[in-house]
Amino acid sequence: MGRRSQSVNELFAGARAGDRAALARLLSLIERGSDDARAIGRLSYPLGGSAYTVGMTGAPGAGKSTLTSAIIGLLRSSGTEVAVLAIDPSSPFTGGAILGDRVRMQDHATDPGVFIRSMATRGHLGGLSLSTPQAIRLLDAIGREWVLVETVGVGQVEVEIAGKADTTVVVVNPGWGDSVQANKAGLMEIADIFVINKADRQGTEGTRRDLEQMLDLSDLGLESWRPPILTAVGTTGQGVAELWASVLAHRDFITSTGALSQRREFRLRDELRDIIVGRLEQRARGLCGGEQWNALQDDVLNRRMDPWAAADEMLKSVDA
Amino acid sequence: MGRRSQSVNELFAGARAGDRAALARLLSLIERGSDDARAIGRLSYPLGGSAYTVGMTGAPGAGKSTLTSAIIGLLRSSGTEVAVLAIDPSSPFTGGAILGDRVRMQDHATDPGVFIRSMATRGHLGGLSLSTPQAIRLLDAIGREWVLVETVGVGQVEVEIAGKADTTVVVVNPGWGDSVQANKAGLMEIADIFVINKADRQGTEGTRRDLEQMLDLSDLGLESWRPPILTAVGTTGQGVAELWASVLAHRDFITSTGALSQRREFRLRDELRDIIVGRLEQRARGLCGGEQWNALQDDVLNRRMDPWAAADEMLKSVDA
Repeated sequence: MGRRSQSVNELFAGARAGDRAALARLLSLIERGSDDARAIGRLSYPLGGSAYTVGMTGAPGAGKSTLTSAIIGLLRSSGTEVAVLAIDPSSPFTGGAILGDRVRMQDHATDPGVFIRSMATRGHLGGLSLSTPQAIRLLDAIGREWVLVETVGVGQVEVEIAGKADTTVVVVNPGWGDSVQANKAGLMEIADIFVINKADRQGTEGTRRDLEQMLDLSDLGLESWRPPILTAVGTTGQGVAELWASVLAHRDFITSTGALSQRREFRLRDELRDIIVGRLEQRARGLCGGEQWNALQDDVLNRRMDPWAAADEMLKSVDA
Repeated sequence: MGRRSQSVNELFAGARAGDRAALARLLSLIERGSDDARAIGRLSYPLGGSAYTVGMTGAPGAGKSTLTSAIIGLLRSSGTEVAVLAIDPSSPFTGGAILGDRVRMQDHATDPGVFIRSMATRGHLGGLSLSTPQAIRLLDAIGREWVLVETVGVGQVEVEIAGKADTTVVVVNPGWGDSVQANKAGLMEIADIFVINKADRQGTEGTRRDLEQMLDLSDLGLESWRPPILTAVGTTGQGVAELWASVLAHRDFITSTGALSQRREFRLRDELRDIIVGRLEQRARGLCGGEQWNALQDDVLNRRMDPWAAADEMLKSVDA
């Protein structure tokens, strides 16, 4: 029997037993957002709740993959298993290939204690926001204790996803203060830990001062955790043990204060809303066709009606 | 009477008469996505249809703002007026400040024939996709003939927005082939014109060959326009006249083949769908509260029910 004909149930059982090809196939189904994705969610959900997610984000070129790779090395040296989801706006044409462009992580590609996967969505708006939590839930359900989620910190959707980890590490570089390229405001909001990577370069102290100032000005919120500002050199591994210790300290902090459960509750509420919106969107797509749609579209194209009035008309038929 | 108390109608009349502060205020209302945004749309829509939009996109640091600034200079030298929307994931904390971080464009800030505006959305998913076309429509309605839309070519939403211009220019740099940072696949899909900026650096010819190869492999679609690959040095202005000539050639091409009307029709259909989805999303947010919501959320948190089943339950009450 070929892999193609395996059912979702069989693939799920396979993935739980350690079959990496089955896991990869399930993740492809999630990425595609098919009905199978929902079936996988139904199987995963009751088994989850033990995985801890760490988000790694920052501007393009900040060295996220190098740092992630160094963290993997650290975890593996103590025998800890780890899964990595690389949320990938730069994925190749095929979309979602294993490893994708994340060449820096290939050191770990043959290690059975490491699972690395690029996720991409070439589909509709919100695709990544829906598929990322599902992918995490699957990794959780099959027993992965640590899930690292790497995203580029540019782009509305991408920063939102990065902020949904249990602990979010924002990777910056010396001279970040001068750069106008990353979503600074968004990154300040989601950071639990800052790490100035490439700290062997000039400007590290200035960047630290800038970040401290920005933290002084920002509202730390109810959790009262002030994000520490660490330094690292991902290529040599310098500072990586301290970074991971800081992740563990943050985990302890939010676990003991109850903030972790609260974050997860908020996240779940967001996800529920995203699912509902996704369903309604499907319904809206269903409306975009047929006679009434064509007639209204003509009216809009000829500027006899504005798009908002046309939307009102279409929505009447949902309500009917 | 202070500006705050001016009605949308008054602001709109002011903007049409050339009052830049009124225009800026209307754009803020659009950005905020309030009911006023809808009123502005209703006023703008019947008056639109003459503006031509040019998207400028590419990876962070590719030199989009520098090239855009050079194009503004070129247009102004022949007296042409131009508006620029800078879709800005890097906007300051306040969100949507005029000029934002686009320091490179400040040369033109005091020129009355130039209007530059940063757009940001700190709000809900899809905010930028809804507000950008509305902002373009307003600029169209008040008589701006050319609207340049600059977006960073990383991020799902941002690339989608960039692809919705009449002509989309993708800015790359020498050595782009090695970079893993931009959304290459997405950018290949939306490009009408490629420009290799910073072409005084090494690697320009290699990058041109890579792009040609990628174009050879890709489907040119029904429009049968093969994107030209130009070179430029934004900082000196070299190649900018040729770039603009290419934009005009593309405009002539899609106008004469009817592809322009078709693109605009597709875009309008997408926008209509986005508006419908936005409305349904508001409705979904309305569902996220109340007794039933709280009870279902408890069930999901305690893993008695999965989120998809909970969404089904919530949606039943929309249908009722």
